[in-house]
Amino acid sequence: MAILLCITQWDVAPWLERLRRLAPERDIRAWPEVGDPADITYAAVWKQPAGILAGLPNLKGIVSLGAGVDHVFADPDLPDVPIARVVDADLTSRMSEWVVLHALMHLRRQRLYDTLQRERRWEDVRPAPGARELRVGVMGLGVLGQDAARKLAVIGFDVAGWSRTPRTVEGIATFSGDGLDAFLARTDLLVALMPLTPETHGILDAALLRKLARDGVFGAPVLMNAGRGGLQVEADILAALDDGTLAAATLDVFETEPLPAGSRLWTHPGVTVTPHVAAISDEDAVGRFVLRQIVRHEQGLGFETPVDRARRY
Amino acid sequence: MAILLCITQWDVAPWLERLRRLAPERDIRAWPEVGDPADITYAAVWKQPAGILAGLPNLKGIVSLGAGVDHVFADPDLPDVPIARVVDADLTSRMSEWVVLHALMHLRRQRLYDTLQRERRWEDVRPAPGARELRVGVMGLGVLGQDAARKLAVIGFDVAGWSRTPRTVEGIATFSGDGLDAFLARTDLLVALMPLTPETHGILDAALLRKLARDGVFGAPVLMNAGRGGLQVEADILAALDDGTLAAATLDVFETEPLPAGSRLWTHPGVTVTPHVAAISDEDAVGRFVLRQIVRHEQGLGFETPVDRARRY
Repeated sequence: MAILLCITQWDVAPWLERLRRLAPERDIRAWPEVGDPADITYAAVWKQPAGILAGLPNLKGIVSLGAGVDHVFADPDLPDVPIARVVDADLTSRMSEWVVLHALMHLRRQRLYDTLQRERRWEDVRPAPGARELRVGVMGLGVLGQDAARKLAVIGFDVAGWSRTPRTVEGIATFSGDGLDAFLARTDLLVALMPLTPETHGILDAALLRKLARDGVFGAPVLMNAGRGGLQVEADILAALDDGTLAAATLDVFETEPLPAGSRLWTHPGVTVTPHVAAISDEDAVGRFVLRQIVRHEQGLGFETPVDRARRY
Repeated sequence: MAILLCITQWDVAPWLERLRRLAPERDIRAWPEVGDPADITYAAVWKQPAGILAGLPNLKGIVSLGAGVDHVFADPDLPDVPIARVVDADLTSRMSEWVVLHALMHLRRQRLYDTLQRERRWEDVRPAPGARELRVGVMGLGVLGQDAARKLAVIGFDVAGWSRTPRTVEGIATFSGDGLDAFLARTDLLVALMPLTPETHGILDAALLRKLARDGVFGAPVLMNAGRGGLQVEADILAALDDGTLAAATLDVFETEPLPAGSRLWTHPGVTVTPHVAAISDEDAVGRFVLRQIVRHEQGLGFETPVDRARRY
């Protein structure tokens, strides 16, 4: 009866400390100090090394510590136990902060004003549209996409959303499935918030970027991706920026993370890079979520946010 | 029976063109081409030159073309006719865009991430608070302040407001009058949106800045001013930035506009300058507003947004 934290690429120490403080009565261990593998009944994971979970004979369930579960499925030896993805109000709110911030930076031409300030130039930048003149399209209408769409609409943006299966979001025009082309054709600023699945891998490619609106207030469209780097084809994005198919891109996620120092994305004048920090997992909020899922599962109630293994999210 | 546009510091041409298109049946003129001063019954103004309006013997009313009326009262020979301030949903929405954008830039440490990108460094910046951990204080709860406070709260900030006279804003803690010190003591990020009046002139000074919270998640507080430059004492703001009383400032308005090239505000690493563009007046939306006020006044209904001459707003 022990919980194993199995984390790579993040610092495990604050997670271990927080979970132990939240549940002092429990036996909580951090990989690689597993002890007797037979003791482990639940694993809380972020990018676990392949095969580790398969070596735990009494494992009853897996809880993801960060948004998305593609990192869990990256393990080819994933044991066949229930998996929970994390849904947390704090994480959702942080993602929407990032989306609204960067949508407003594009709308309000903050990069141009930054340049003007460096040059001590007092000039209006025109055109100066209001938010209602910019058509934002949120691709992916899960918990994160719906919250971002709703907050963008409150700020005044003309928001629509697309999802694989039909969804209704109050106050937002929604498209689904085959409606993707129509959705893209009315989108000046695309916000990608889909899960990474075999279906969405590489979906942000040259063909998709060419379908975005070109009759908007700024002419060329803008791409924002805070979903997963695997959604995007970076060579296509750079080519689209170079030939004017895209006006700009703001990316929080990348094909390879950390983004290699040699990537042109770091230095392209049209690109804003943030280092996968759009929606960081707060140890306290997510720690409470993880413990609640484990208690529920022990009581036979099942996880609140079960993952569909066929769909991979 | 003519309307006079009396504008300085802005380009008058788009206003003249727009008003004439909106009201082709009317005689609309633009200063300095006044024609017979006795023809003018209404003036629509932005920073009119002193004494011009006093020379119009049949003037019945004045409508301001931009937020605030301090620019109207700057004329020592202002005739004693009714004045309307502009309240326009488009202008209000633009101001809130600016406020939310720059509040999020501070919360999400965008300036630090800009620097990290220039240096191609993939690093998390900590602390990384969520919006609920940042106490934002909106000073001035008129139409602009209330809208900004409401939108900041939707994003998740811990918002309070202060106004001269008591106001109730749903979902926002409000302070008034003598409650200013208590309001400042719980404010990590101050947003100044007051009108400029003899009472508020220079209110953003060293004494006020010292009263802001220093126990917030970032330690030192942040100042944002999109009200009027006359609210702030720039020497005090620079001194506060230099000695750590303030962590940063985002300013859209200045004591002297355009901001002189020699001002340290342009180059101080803690300062973001935007050139009085937070809430630009849209010629179409404001043009319709102006014509509606004139029609109302001609019909004896009075302006929708009359200015209190004693209070000067």
